[in-house]
Amino acid sequence: MAETLLLTGATGYIASHTWVALHQAGYNVVGIDNLCNSNRAVVERLARITGATPNFVEGDVRDRALLDKLFAEHKISGAIHFAALKAVGESVSKPIEYYSNNLNGLLTLCAAMQSANVKQLVFSSSATVYGNPHAVPILEDFPLSATNPYGQTKLMGEQILRDLEISDESWRIGYLRYFNPVGAHESGLIGEDPGGIPNNLMPYVAQVAGGRRQKLSVYGGDYPTVDGTGVRDYIHVCDLADGHVAALKYLREQPRGMTVNLGTGRGYSVLEVVKAYERASGRPVPYEIVARRPGDIASCYADPALARELLGWRAQHDIDRMCEDSWRWQSMNPNGFAG
Amino acid sequence: MAETLLLTGATGYIASHTWVALHQAGYNVVGIDNLCNSNRAVVERLARITGATPNFVEGDVRDRALLDKLFAEHKISGAIHFAALKAVGESVSKPIEYYSNNLNGLLTLCAAMQSANVKQLVFSSSATVYGNPHAVPILEDFPLSATNPYGQTKLMGEQILRDLEISDESWRIGYLRYFNPVGAHESGLIGEDPGGIPNNLMPYVAQVAGGRRQKLSVYGGDYPTVDGTGVRDYIHVCDLADGHVAALKYLREQPRGMTVNLGTGRGYSVLEVVKAYERASGRPVPYEIVARRPGDIASCYADPALARELLGWRAQHDIDRMCEDSWRWQSMNPNGFAG
Repeated sequence: MAETLLLTGATGYIASHTWVALHQAGYNVVGIDNLCNSNRAVVERLARITGATPNFVEGDVRDRALLDKLFAEHKISGAIHFAALKAVGESVSKPIEYYSNNLNGLLTLCAAMQSANVKQLVFSSSATVYGNPHAVPILEDFPLSATNPYGQTKLMGEQILRDLEISDESWRIGYLRYFNPVGAHESGLIGEDPGGIPNNLMPYVAQVAGGRRQKLSVYGGDYPTVDGTGVRDYIHVCDLADGHVAALKYLREQPRGMTVNLGTGRGYSVLEVVKAYERASGRPVPYEIVARRPGDIASCYADPALARELLGWRAQHDIDRMCEDSWRWQSMNPNGFAG
Repeated sequence: MAETLLLTGATGYIASHTWVALHQAGYNVVGIDNLCNSNRAVVERLARITGATPNFVEGDVRDRALLDKLFAEHKISGAIHFAALKAVGESVSKPIEYYSNNLNGLLTLCAAMQSANVKQLVFSSSATVYGNPHAVPILEDFPLSATNPYGQTKLMGEQILRDLEISDESWRIGYLRYFNPVGAHESGLIGEDPGGIPNNLMPYVAQVAGGRRQKLSVYGGDYPTVDGTGVRDYIHVCDLADGHVAALKYLREQPRGMTVNLGTGRGYSVLEVVKAYERASGRPVPYEIVARRPGDIASCYADPALARELLGWRAQHDIDRMCEDSWRWQSMNPNGFAG
């Protein structure tokens, strides 16, 4: 019989792509989301992609009674905890909201899982826990730090889960440190739908290519990189989704958890992304080099060897494919799910 | 008109003594406690000490609706957040409970205060945030770390509040890092009432002197200290209480918050405490030197100069007075508040 997984923040960008991957891998999924940062239309799109009716529950992961109900109604064997607020700038202006959402969400989920004796958990961590890394590529045993409340919530989340593992060794926890997810499902039916002005590069580039924004501001052209612009490790969201499936398999088969980077191991500069997007879309992406942003670093990319070794997983899609899939999503949904 | 303060965890050990000090300093107090680790009898004792009826509300600081009600009903100008679980060993075995109580408690209080536009807060931090300090005496700018989930909750609590201050500079937050509170109010009516086997030295010594326990186990007799036993900075709980009154005055008068150690600056060894307790009680305190506990350090005491400079506060009571007041409380209440 197929295993059933609980996905929190299930209609978000990474979660929705993971939902598809889990469906394809034969899992049943129960998805919960309070829709504070995502759109109910995702559920209908998931139905079209998977050909099945998604089991979606609108609700907040901090609602303990609701979680207890879900664990009682379904034979859930594990959870992937995506639910979290994730905008760095907003986290600086609204720290209590961020800590409350991200920490209380995690704590409520863990408490409900403990009660239900469900102890397999995949945690959405982030490369942000490396703070300003002293070197690249980044290894999992690099020192951890945070430079803003969003990063703190990920760092604290990892700490809380490590203490949970110490208290009860029957837990199996996977800490997945995402690099920069981009792209979209090849169907063009789901993708990243940032509210307002995109915080991340590729959705912004997509909106410039699509004509929704005039030009891209590139923060810093004098970094010690291939062309002076910042280098990041972009990873196709479907590769990331597959990483979750691989992590769940590992947790089921091994007597321990793991902490791995999910990145490609290859960095691209802002201008390399711009050029790739122009190729993929056939549209110009005008840009302007402006001052560096305080806190930004020159170069950040993963060493993905441990994920390959432990999970047998590696990213498959290159930057051109990331841009092509992003562009298909952007063209088909110029205003995101609301359109 | 007198200011009104909200005290969370109000019937706990330090909070109840602070309640008395605040009353004497002319404040009105609204106290809230879920009584998970304290006794309702404290309220009646406070009435006897202060000659006034304490305004006590049984409830959980994580109950946002209750907090909103309290802020609506009373003209509260600030809060002292005592409510927290504090047993190091228990925090290792029940981390989710500790994180939930201590972090959600703080976050719920801050959110309610923000809504009510009440932005003066004194936070019960602890010397535990210095982890294993590299030197003594300990200064406020020493590096911070934690060695167990309880310590993590204090460290994370400080981080959350610092991010809150950055997001909104109208907050005035006092971070009080307590060393080792001991002793009791001179009336003998309130004092420390640990449930079960005491985790801390002086309550244990008190129960040995009182005949409730046979002998004291002293963990380690070969530390590089005056007599080989561990040295700590014990501070009379009434001095600590006065520190809170001084901190509130500072927050009202200064355009900024502060972080200070509340300790005496003088360390005493376990055996020095034992001897002082024997003098104060006139009873023998049998003890046995046993192996060191992993994680314990030789010596830990505060540099209290900053608190003196900023708050005009310093501890007044010496170790003999601490033991005398502890013994009076112990003799009058051999079984704590339950007796």
